[in-house]
Amino acid sequence: MNTRSEYDLLGNLHVPANALYGIQTLRAAENFKITGVPIAHFPELIKALAMVKAAAARTNQEFKLLDEDKADAIVFACQDLINGQHHEHFIVDVIQGGAGTSTNMNANEVIANIALLKLGYQLGDYDHLHPNDHVNKSQSTNDAYPTAACLGIQFAADNFLPALHQLKLSLEAKGREFSHVLKMGRTQLQDAVPMTLGQEFEAFAVTLGEDIDRIKEACALLCEVNLGGTAIGTGINTPKGYSQKAIEKLATISKKPLVPASNLVEATSDMGAFVFFSGILKRLAIKLSKMSNDLRLLSSGPRTGFGEIMLPKMQPGSSIMPGKVNPVIPEAMNQTAYQVIASDLAITMAAEAGQLQLNAMEPMIIYNLLNSLKMLKEACNMLNERCIQGIEANESACLAHVENSIGIITALVPRIGYSNSSRIAKEALMTGATVKSLILKEQLLTEHELNELLKPENMIAPTNALA
Amino acid sequence: MNTRSEYDLLGNLHVPANALYGIQTLRAAENFKITGVPIAHFPELIKALAMVKAAAARTNQEFKLLDEDKADAIVFACQDLINGQHHEHFIVDVIQGGAGTSTNMNANEVIANIALLKLGYQLGDYDHLHPNDHVNKSQSTNDAYPTAACLGIQFAADNFLPALHQLKLSLEAKGREFSHVLKMGRTQLQDAVPMTLGQEFEAFAVTLGEDIDRIKEACALLCEVNLGGTAIGTGINTPKGYSQKAIEKLATISKKPLVPASNLVEATSDMGAFVFFSGILKRLAIKLSKMSNDLRLLSSGPRTGFGEIMLPKMQPGSSIMPGKVNPVIPEAMNQTAYQVIASDLAITMAAEAGQLQLNAMEPMIIYNLLNSLKMLKEACNMLNERCIQGIEANESACLAHVENSIGIITALVPRIGYSNSSRIAKEALMTGATVKSLILKEQLLTEHELNELLKPENMIAPTNALA
Amino acid sequence: MNTRSEYDLLGNLHVPANALYGIQTLRAAENFKITGVPIAHFPELIKALAMVKAAAARTNQEFKLLDEDKADAIVFACQDLINGQHHEHFIVDVIQGGAGTSTNMNANEVIANIALLKLGYQLGDYDHLHPNDHVNKSQSTNDAYPTAACLGIQFAADNFLPALHQLKLSLEAKGREFSHVLKMGRTQLQDAVPMTLGQEFEAFAVTLGEDIDRIKEACALLCEVNLGGTAIGTGINTPKGYSQKAIEKLATISKKPLVPASNLVEATSDMGAFVFFSGILKRLAIKLSKMSNDLRLLSSGPRTGFGEIMLPKMQPGSSIMPGKVNPVIPEAMNQTAYQVIASDLAITMAAEAGQLQLNAMEPMIIYNLLNSLKMLKEACNMLNERCIQGIEANESACLAHVENSIGIITALVPRIGYSNSSRIAKEALMTGATVKSLILKEQLLTEHELNELLKPENMIAPTNALA
Amino acid sequence: MNTRSEYDLLGNLHVPANALYGIQTLRAAENFKITGVPIAHFPELIKALAMVKAAAARTNQEFKLLDEDKADAIVFACQDLINGQHHEHFIVDVIQGGAGTSTNMNANEVIANIALLKLGYQLGDYDHLHPNDHVNKSQSTNDAYPTAACLGIQFAADNFLPALHQLKLSLEAKGREFSHVLKMGRTQLQDAVPMTLGQEFEAFAVTLGEDIDRIKEACALLCEVNLGGTAIGTGINTPKGYSQKAIEKLATISKKPLVPASNLVEATSDMGAFVFFSGILKRLAIKLSKMSNDLRLLSSGPRTGFGEIMLPKMQPGSSIMPGKVNPVIPEAMNQTAYQVIASDLAITMAAEAGQLQLNAMEPMIIYNLLNSLKMLKEACNMLNERCIQGIEANESACLAHVENSIGIITALVPRIGYSNSSRIAKEALMTGATVKSLILKEQLLTEHELNELLKPENMIAPTNALA
Repeated sequence: MNTRSEYDLLGNLHVPANALYGIQTLRAAENFKITGVPIAHFPELIKALAMVKAAAARTNQEFKLLDEDKADAIVFACQDLINGQHHEHFIVDVIQGGAGTSTNMNANEVIANIALLKLGYQLGDYDHLHPNDHVNKSQSTNDAYPTAACLGIQFAADNFLPALHQLKLSLEAKGREFSHVLKMGRTQLQDAVPMTLGQEFEAFAVTLGEDIDRIKEACALLCEVNLGGTAIGTGINTPKGYSQKAIEKLATISKKPLVPASNLVEATSDMGAFVFFSGILKRLAIKLSKMSNDLRLLSSGPRTGFGEIMLPKMQPGSSIMPGKVNPVIPEAMNQTAYQVIASDLAITMAAEAGQLQLNAMEPMIIYNLLNSLKMLKEACNMLNERCIQGIEANESACLAHVENSIGIITALVPRIGYSNSSRIAKEALMTGATVKSLILKEQLLTEHELNELLKPENMIAPTNALA
Repeated sequence: MNTRSEYDLLGNLHVPANALYGIQTLRAAENFKITGVPIAHFPELIKALAMVKAAAARTNQEFKLLDEDKADAIVFACQDLINGQHHEHFIVDVIQGGAGTSTNMNANEVIANIALLKLGYQLGDYDHLHPNDHVNKSQSTNDAYPTAACLGIQFAADNFLPALHQLKLSLEAKGREFSHVLKMGRTQLQDAVPMTLGQEFEAFAVTLGEDIDRIKEACALLCEVNLGGTAIGTGINTPKGYSQKAIEKLATISKKPLVPASNLVEATSDMGAFVFFSGILKRLAIKLSKMSNDLRLLSSGPRTGFGEIMLPKMQPGSSIMPGKVNPVIPEAMNQTAYQVIASDLAITMAAEAGQLQLNAMEPMIIYNLLNSLKMLKEACNMLNERCIQGIEANESACLAHVENSIGIITALVPRIGYSNSSRIAKEALMTGATVKSLILKEQLLTEHELNELLKPENMIAPTNALA
Repeated sequence: MNTRSEYDLLGNLHVPANALYGIQTLRAAENFKITGVPIAHFPELIKALAMVKAAAARTNQEFKLLDEDKADAIVFACQDLINGQHHEHFIVDVIQGGAGTSTNMNANEVIANIALLKLGYQLGDYDHLHPNDHVNKSQSTNDAYPTAACLGIQFAADNFLPALHQLKLSLEAKGREFSHVLKMGRTQLQDAVPMTLGQEFEAFAVTLGEDIDRIKEACALLCEVNLGGTAIGTGINTPKGYSQKAIEKLATISKKPLVPASNLVEATSDMGAFVFFSGILKRLAIKLSKMSNDLRLLSSGPRTGFGEIMLPKMQPGSSIMPGKVNPVIPEAMNQTAYQVIASDLAITMAAEAGQLQLNAMEPMIIYNLLNSLKMLKEACNMLNERCIQGIEANESACLAHVENSIGIITALVPRIGYSNSSRIAKEALMTGATVKSLILKEQLLTEHELNELLKPENMIAPTNALA
Repeated sequence: MNTRSEYDLLGNLHVPANALYGIQTLRAAENFKITGVPIAHFPELIKALAMVKAAAARTNQEFKLLDEDKADAIVFACQDLINGQHHEHFIVDVIQGGAGTSTNMNANEVIANIALLKLGYQLGDYDHLHPNDHVNKSQSTNDAYPTAACLGIQFAADNFLPALHQLKLSLEAKGREFSHVLKMGRTQLQDAVPMTLGQEFEAFAVTLGEDIDRIKEACALLCEVNLGGTAIGTGINTPKGYSQKAIEKLATISKKPLVPASNLVEATSDMGAFVFFSGILKRLAIKLSKMSNDLRLLSSGPRTGFGEIMLPKMQPGSSIMPGKVNPVIPEAMNQTAYQVIASDLAITMAAEAGQLQLNAMEPMIIYNLLNSLKMLKEACNMLNERCIQGIEANESACLAHVENSIGIITALVPRIGYSNSSRIAKEALMTGATVKSLILKEQLLTEHELNELLKPENMIAPTNALA
């Protein structure tokens, strides 16, 4: 393999001749092989890093800390990355020591080398444009990297939210489609009172809709960035006013309403916004898992379960039991949810492990957030397209459940009282008789009154019949 | 023991003659003994339940579902509970099956009995005023209980936030007190660049301040309640308009800006607002733990550690090592934080376990939130009063660290470049020489330039010296 | 209040005149109020501490480091504590800073004062017998406390295991009682193949039985103790041979097969045995929760669920829905399980937070273990006595499920092949026909063959019919 | 793309002409895209599946349920997979619904097709050898898959343990190398009593050694397998004696001491052995993280920290601070540990989610275990080779810490008492004087006595000097 020689604080190393990355990237790639997943796996992060570097270059130019040629070349290189090119040169592992220095240097080196080529120099000819002195100018990993993360996570959320929104729309559509299907509601897995299947699906849609709002709020917290704080938030090695300017430019480039954090020392070590974001993803995961559990319960059967809905058949369910079809799509969603919840714990532990002016565990926090967003996107699309859209109601089973149920007696309590009702319910359960027949036998209500009170529209909503 | 006899669906039972609670409470108390902690441990919850019952009674009265005498007696009883009386009759365990039915019935029974006495009847004489038919009228556990929880948690937060605020103020005061103490910042436990001890404490204050805001936002989410949804959110057994009216009255009584949830079916089974709240408490716990870790690091020593601050001595540290004093207060805060983080997991699992129209695990979710708030309140007061307020700076040690450090070379990078600086740093480390002496020896900068660049004010903030 | 004056490293303090504890206990009680739960809540721990102190006293006597009178008095005091007396003087909070020093000093002071009274001196007259110099002789908190914890947890396990064993026996009994009840097994909530209800309950018994074994193994790991390691495991301030002798005596007193840990430095800071123990409790909690979920599924209904078993009715289930009875006992077990699982996380974080030669978070690790054991004991007794023992089978429903099911076609696969079987199953599902009728219609098997293959004994076990 | 047509219960589909997998694999690959990681990522699992299928084929042959030609062809195909060939045809995602059916069918189809080629037939010509009827004969996913998992995890452990053992050996070597380096031990980050750096590293080695034993014990639990239980553990569709025979053959093929689980119904749904295994990996992760934290503390500096050891320099530490070198290797180990701990939570939730006769979440449990083992292997190799082996002691700093410390007064307590010692310690701290000088000034001990008591060999171990 052709190589070129590069050197750093620790000595010389041979870098592949055509590599856009340099010696520090190579050291990191050799040091960290834990997951085998390179940061290129998350293009949103690479694009965000490039935007940060472009904004920094233009700000440095404005402060006359970087001449125009170099700034132009750096911005040119960043644009390539933003366009999705050269990501294969981002080779460091997503789990890495060093608080993101390896990721930042990977970006600095790739950008420097693209810029060198653009300027007509050789790869690695850093005398003309240096990864640290020029690309990283007025920056530290400790501000450039978390700023890029705040941005990259927002981009990933932008990719995810449409999937969640489509899922919500499908649930709403099912809510409308099933609005006439009367069924028994259940609390604690015991027959409760009537409702419609439409109400059940509408509630799913509503609960996911709330989390779309929460995720957007969480993105807003990520708009407070620490660019310009450099090493520990004091802004060492930046000119006065740099932070404000650089963040303004980054806001323009990224089209995100970024602002400087109110206290850059705090913002440098604090992982609060990431923890908050993860908490929201966990909340969503809990809801998706609960909904998947419900879908599996409602479709249990075909002959010995609840049997109120049929999920679309996606694959044969068993290698030994012919004809068996399983709720594989909700099951996969459950598992995704557990992974996301587990990632929240990883993030919790990493955030707690921050020390003094920095949190060295940032790379893993960022990896877990990006990975959760990616998995959730796939899983929501899967659930929407391969399950929700094809769900059918078993209307006759739903109706039979209501007619056969004891729980409808609840609707009679305002007239006959809780104690009477309890007694009738108990007798119905023991004898197998219907509630209606027992009420009539005891002449507690007339048939007309009974029919009025048990009209579906009077049982599935507040009623004027009580007045 | 004197007893009176009461009966329910399952038969008769002897209740202590003077008990304000009744048969259903007694059954629950016998069924559940898991923690030994009664719900009376959280007076905020009892008060909130009483407010819900009072609001319901007045609304039922308005809808002519309850006559004025009964409504007055119920409200009288609720007022007693709001005033803090009779809480010892709330005996059911904080962990209980039944989705809160036992807690709700404990409230219904105690209120009915106080009201009966007020009306001149005997305890247990429910023909005149019934726990279910009158106190619980137009309600179900499934709306009354979570509504009370939303309120009770806000009351507990109201009790907690002043403790957190005082802690923040003390940290701010230390930030001002230490604003002149120059020290080395550290990243990844390695010497980084200078800052002031004041900046460090100010950052602690800022980060806690953010969470005061977050907790208030989380309280806002708890203002959407499901009262009026009854059993499964459909509002069965309520008159039209009941939910809106009852919540308005409850808002008045509680002085909280409560509103009906947009979808009551969703609101009945969804634990999202509790999960969100717990996520915020977890975030705060992470920050408090990280801060405690920092305090323990900075005060490590007295002779072989960082030794930059002295914590107040609260107790002898060792049964075998004389003179040893340990950072016991931050250590207790760490442990509190781990409990709160663990509670968040308990809540996560319980929330995920909801099924169909209800979450049967609510009691434990509510217990964990109230308990976390209580522990955090005690722990924040402890940390404030027994640690932060008495912290002293070891100014000479802090300054010596700066003068002795290699990290100050960072401030020279804009002038002499990253590669030169790396070389000098390496030599300083290997030879033990100071950075200053090596720079002068190599004539990279004049003494005047050097002194200018290394002025504290130029190292702990952005600078015009770079222009 | 009458008081006496005591002093320590930090100065003087007034201790209640009749308190058996002393100044260091009082400081700790004032410092730590986080949970409000005193260590006396766990008598097993107090007894274990007393045993450690007694063993140490006798060993010191043997090494001539303590005269006979003092040793006798100390042992007398310890015996009182072992007998359950004076525990109300153990007032320090279960969550405390200081790695257990406060608990250890609470024990040292109470024992010293009981011994002083026995010797005819005044409370607090430590010149004659000193909490540190005599009761704590040759010990540090860092060996005495974890050794006591290892012992106390074993005592708590001794209290818990009978409850778990009784639960297992009840499940076994139900296994036998239901051994003739044929029902459909379910995988992924879909009808699978036949089994007996007895097999289902027997499996519950078996799985709990395994964890009885695991808990005993975990207790065995707790038999390796670090007594004699003193402050950091080097054994400073102990005579050669002390550790071995003291542990031998402790083994005799406690009737547990204690041995010295192979490396006392490791044993002083390592929380591995506690983490292991907690992991086993978590595993048990997972099983208990899964079993509770199953019980709730199998008893779902009464009319719209699986309805295969009836749980005993323990309390009315609803404040609004008359006649409703809920599976409150399994629900309470679920919640207990989530608490135990959450405690495992608290322990995990605390264990990871150990630093260098000690883990300062031990008090909270020990608290969580003791608390989990206590809750599990209550919950297992509850589940056994208030649920399992009273479960009844709905035999007719179980049988109807089998006869109505499509899943029995699995038993025909070895004869008619997977593809044929899939086709028949599909047709049965779509037409509502029975599997039997379709097989006969297609003449795939004779009626005799069919009946043979579908005999219960051939479907619920391996068979010779295949040969 | 060339394709062939295959059909199943749900209809026809075009499979790539050269694919060794078939229609069911293809459906699963289209259904599940959540992680993008195919099961081929874990070759140990593929090999284990092949061993299970080979053992089943030979057992079926013995029971005359499969003719010799087919059995030979199946075993030939399995051998190819065991040899590492064709793994690229295992394309289903590691997270999948269906309790592993897709993985099992992927194996059945690949094996069937290799066997068909061997027998001279076309790919997909299943009339001659069928994935279900022949390869899967006498099996269900629900026994074949968990059995393969039990085996695959053991293989992965076999790959991991040497890395852990090497790490332990390196720590032991450092323990010997540093056995003469006297230093201060620290408890609660405060100066405690002397020890050697060698003792510190030896303790690391000992603690990891214990977990090597624990992992082996956990593997033993995985030797109880449920092969022969088929769909729900009742052994439907197996001849009597099949389970025992098949497991014997599998033991021979795999060289693992496999035995049938004592109750196959229990074993089919229970995840206990996986939970146990994960608990052990979590325990190890806690230890590795604690050790990494210690390494980072001990190497903190270079000028403002503990500075007792130097970690090898693996990469420049900062993009802005020249000369900075960070403890990147332990940091990466910390992050790995948090991932493993998080995976334990994912497994916990998945295990708790099992229902009735099966746990549908098994694929994700198995994925997390295999992934944790893989990450731990990489991380242990990294820590060993890139950190531990190159650690150097800063002997002079270590010694200076001891000589300067107050903690050595502990060694004098047996002679001068706890109260005297506390007073001296306090004075030393306040005045800056050494303990020695104060003792001599007060004539509490002669210089000779003092020197004797403070001899290193008397401070780092139990001593005869006390007698």
